[in-house]
Amino acid sequence: MSGNDRTVLDADLARFAAGLFTAAGAPAGDAALIAKALIWANLRGVDSHGVLRIPGYLARIDNGITNPSPDMQITTDLPAAAVLDADQGFGQVALARATGIAIEKASAAGIGLCLIRRTVHMGAIGYFALDIAAEGMAGIAINVSRPNMAYPGARTAGLATSPIAIAVPGSTHAPLILDMATATQSMGKIQLARDTGQKLGKGWAVDADGNPTTDPNKAVIPTALGGSKGGGLSLMFECLTSLTVGNPLIAPFLEAAPDSRQHMQNGLVIAINIAQFGDVGDYAREVDRLADAIKSLPRADGVNEILVPGERGDGVLERRRKTGIPLPDGTWKRLEEVATRLGVAMPKSTPGK
Amino acid sequence: MSGNDRTVLDADLARFAAGLFTAAGAPAGDAALIAKALIWANLRGVDSHGVLRIPGYLARIDNGITNPSPDMQITTDLPAAAVLDADQGFGQVALARATGIAIEKASAAGIGLCLIRRTVHMGAIGYFALDIAAEGMAGIAINVSRPNMAYPGARTAGLATSPIAIAVPGSTHAPLILDMATATQSMGKIQLARDTGQKLGKGWAVDADGNPTTDPNKAVIPTALGGSKGGGLSLMFECLTSLTVGNPLIAPFLEAAPDSRQHMQNGLVIAINIAQFGDVGDYAREVDRLADAIKSLPRADGVNEILVPGERGDGVLERRRKTGIPLPDGTWKRLEEVATRLGVAMPKSTPGK
Repeated sequence: MSGNDRTVLDADLARFAAGLFTAAGAPAGDAALIAKALIWANLRGVDSHGVLRIPGYLARIDNGITNPSPDMQITTDLPAAAVLDADQGFGQVALARATGIAIEKASAAGIGLCLIRRTVHMGAIGYFALDIAAEGMAGIAINVSRPNMAYPGARTAGLATSPIAIAVPGSTHAPLILDMATATQSMGKIQLARDTGQKLGKGWAVDADGNPTTDPNKAVIPTALGGSKGGGLSLMFECLTSLTVGNPLIAPFLEAAPDSRQHMQNGLVIAINIAQFGDVGDYAREVDRLADAIKSLPRADGVNEILVPGERGDGVLERRRKTGIPLPDGTWKRLEEVATRLGVAMPKSTPGK
Repeated sequence: MSGNDRTVLDADLARFAAGLFTAAGAPAGDAALIAKALIWANLRGVDSHGVLRIPGYLARIDNGITNPSPDMQITTDLPAAAVLDADQGFGQVALARATGIAIEKASAAGIGLCLIRRTVHMGAIGYFALDIAAEGMAGIAINVSRPNMAYPGARTAGLATSPIAIAVPGSTHAPLILDMATATQSMGKIQLARDTGQKLGKGWAVDADGNPTTDPNKAVIPTALGGSKGGGLSLMFECLTSLTVGNPLIAPFLEAAPDSRQHMQNGLVIAINIAQFGDVGDYAREVDRLADAIKSLPRADGVNEILVPGERGDGVLERRRKTGIPLPDGTWKRLEEVATRLGVAMPKSTPGK
């Protein structure tokens, strides 16, 4: 980042962010939760899913797309599954509620599924998969958006970069957490290349004519991971979530149906109750053993350390908890604008390095 | 394929294959099922998972790795989940049984999970995900093997190319079926490049020293799809399946523990009962609508048709049902060897084109 960066301690940033959401009409508990999930992404170095999203989140409240005080309802309630209608409330609030429902269902039934319909941007879904792992269960989360990714063979966006997150508890190790988009690279990485003037990797993105480009300024949409594999996963995620809850996002958009360009997300959370299959302590020790075995593999040339899922983010988190979260000047200024408008004081910050 | 190919009608090939498995000690119903699942892969053009596997399957019976007449047991039975211990029986038999259990659990609970432990090669898992779709449910299948794929940063095999299959019912369209390995390319494609003398794609595989190679004769193991993404998925699949059922496959292999090199697979099947969330007919029509919308996307240069998951295989199946399944001379000869040994007559064949 540039010399104009500031750093803000995560607790200060969380208080500030929660203040913004409260001022914009969210209940205090919801505001704190949304702030915590965003700042968790910043702490882990996933700044594309952190506080830089706040001005956009607040704009969606102004535009009537996000309902800051939703009346979320369970519209289907089965022994091991449920549907949560999020009433266009914040994705983080919907995910937290769905996570609780999936855990509750799994506690009795062995597995629990909570589908989420009609919510908005969920942010870093790994946060919620980890909440399930913290209960000694295996957690899976998926979300689906409007098209923003190239489908193999197509010239325009056909599907979303819809991510999947999977988390399992470790014993002395941190939980393993995989949180991956179905795109080759995220739009965030393309934006970063634009900011830094670097070329994109081959095959990352296509231009406005649907042709491959390594020029970040010509790149319009990312490609699907491995072509038909990432594209296929994203397509099937729409089927598993949006179509099951009767709220399709992709087809109406591609048909240019009324209101089909409006931002909206669906998703799902699954919890698998490890304790009903064996001892959770034994399981967690096997997770440690697996992580150790992978990390002990002979390393390829130039590789200093083999990392297991979540480990890179865990390392950044440990550092940023101490040193604070770096915020580029642009992010800071955009936060200042919304803070001024909502009458919220900016958090304490120090010049970054 | 070469001028030495033969073609065999799928019904004749299925009868022949079932005869081999029966002669090797499998119950008639199991033998017919294994044959049908293998030939389904051939019909769809996935010859790497078809009858060319039969000699290897039979050798594993001789070696005591596969139990042709297993006593499979449900060792955990929960309202929405179960564990099936497959007693080292055929993967197809275990998957068929697990599919039935997952469907039964989902019928009442909304979602059903059946974990599978201690089985052998499952073949094309998409066959069983489609069985779930045929019941009007969404089906997911995953399997996990011993390491045969490069983990990002490692010089040797650290994980398996463990696939995932997802299937959903269509209305006038065929069901959508995604069946993908977590590797960039399958070992089968690398073998094909060896046979045809073609170079591999960049990034597909590494050599014995763990360095990237495009020489199919130097390629030893395939790379993980998208590096940390495919590698991460494969790692988490081991956690979701093998570790949950207390039968780890990866860590013991990497530690060179006793018996840890012996072939073995674990897996899972999930069924989601669409009918409890809405009308299955409406769902299937939305699947059609989604497929139509994707197929109608503006095509990139040089693309004749945009395909949805499963469509390529459906097309091959339609042709091969009529014209028969092409078998290369090498496959035919290896089948002839085992047929002679087991006293089974070869199927009727015609010279291929």
